[in-house]
Amino acid sequence: MNKHQTAAILIIGNEILSGRTRDANGWLVARQLFERGCKLTEIVVVPDVHHNIVESLNRLRNDYDAVITSGGIGPTHDDITMESIACAFDVSLKEHSHIVQAMLAHYGKDGVNAGRRRMSRIPEGAKLIYCEKSIAPGVHIDNVYVLAGVPDIFAAQLDAILGDFGGHRFERREIEVELPESSFALELEAIQEQFLKVEIGSYPNRCGNKPCGKICLSSQQSDQLAEAEQAVRSMLEQLV
Amino acid sequence: MNKHQTAAILIIGNEILSGRTRDANGWLVARQLFERGCKLTEIVVVPDVHHNIVESLNRLRNDYDAVITSGGIGPTHDDITMESIACAFDVSLKEHSHIVQAMLAHYGKDGVNAGRRRMSRIPEGAKLIYCEKSIAPGVHIDNVYVLAGVPDIFAAQLDAILGDFGGHRFERREIEVELPESSFALELEAIQEQFLKVEIGSYPNRCGNKPCGKICLSSQQSDQLAEAEQAVRSMLEQLV
Repeated sequence: MNKHQTAAILIIGNEILSGRTRDANGWLVARQLFERGCKLTEIVVVPDVHHNIVESLNRLRNDYDAVITSGGIGPTHDDITMESIACAFDVSLKEHSHIVQAMLAHYGKDGVNAGRRRMSRIPEGAKLIYCEKSIAPGVHIDNVYVLAGVPDIFAAQLDAILGDFGGHRFERREIEVELPESSFALELEAIQEQFLKVEIGSYPNRCGNKPCGKICLSSQQSDQLAEAEQAVRSMLEQLV
Repeated sequence: MNKHQTAAILIIGNEILSGRTRDANGWLVARQLFERGCKLTEIVVVPDVHHNIVESLNRLRNDYDAVITSGGIGPTHDDITMESIACAFDVSLKEHSHIVQAMLAHYGKDGVNAGRRRMSRIPEGAKLIYCEKSIAPGVHIDNVYVLAGVPDIFAAQLDAILGDFGGHRFERREIEVELPESSFALELEAIQEQFLKVEIGSYPNRCGNKPCGKICLSSQQSDQLAEAEQAVRSMLEQLV
């Protein structure tokens, strides 16, 4: 299989949208995919609502090499990710014998109640994503990876699939500046136009009463990155 | 004007997608709109790329009462939000005399360089959103509010527009549980079906080796919320 070069993450959870919980999983994916050379191109957070999940998933899986989802795979009524994924792929939701067996082995016959049984139903044709943190696995169907929302389980399941993602590693350079952005905007634009394989961003801030900030360069091409960095440093030296 | 009851936030910025920066603005909007009784229904993060911004904005402004955008309104080449918004609304980008005047007053004639001049161009027909943190304002066009990305400027501009958002306040109750979710999943579902105006979520965790977590209830209707909370507490007491 070719590795995924572009990806999106679909975060499913009312708790993020209501401000109860600050997202951690999107941020983790962003850092991990950058490290691996896969371009995370969109992060979407939707509520635990069937049509929002289905529509966003179908859009994202069409637009990018792969989609990672986070959340909504537990045993309670607000966990509707698996049925929404099944609906998006137009397949049925089916109890998977391996999950039932793992649950029986772990909880015993009496421990596999209706709630846990619900977690054994996955979209037909999906493969299981196991990790050591949870009996109930995530699943992989076509170019979609369905992971848990609880951050430490999400992180462990993400570890299990990261090998499917990546290309040439991105490298990043940051240059501190103590000038207002407007004083180097045109010069920086000229450098950006010269180095099309380098992504150049300017992130302003205030340090006390003075303007400060960072110019951030990233690229999959080391030599271009080094040249662009040098060009930015020379440009800044001429301004001060 | 009727206040906005539903909203989305469109966060524009490579720095979030590359994992360089953890989002703060989406999280702030989530908490502030919840407080005000406006339902934040989608958070989208896109890169500094024209077609991603235009497509996402047009989708979101059609789907929700209002859209708040964050980022990309500075003077550098990667700040392309204003032209993308203008494109989405099919209007031209025009220098606004009030912004130029404010810049002249603050920086003097020599200080209004090409970079700053760029920040005076806004979509035709847009109104200005001023705050004390920045000379360059955000703008408001139709149901879209275009704010800065720098968190403290974003927060100040958000304060200036929050009066346009809201309905009946949401209230939230949280109940700590020391049981696995599966042991109360069916009972909780029955309570959810009984109280349709209350949003009930279950958020599992691990406390050492034991399952724990929170059941979270929120609603715009105090009496329903109190009744639902009581129902959950009674249900849990019967299980322990």
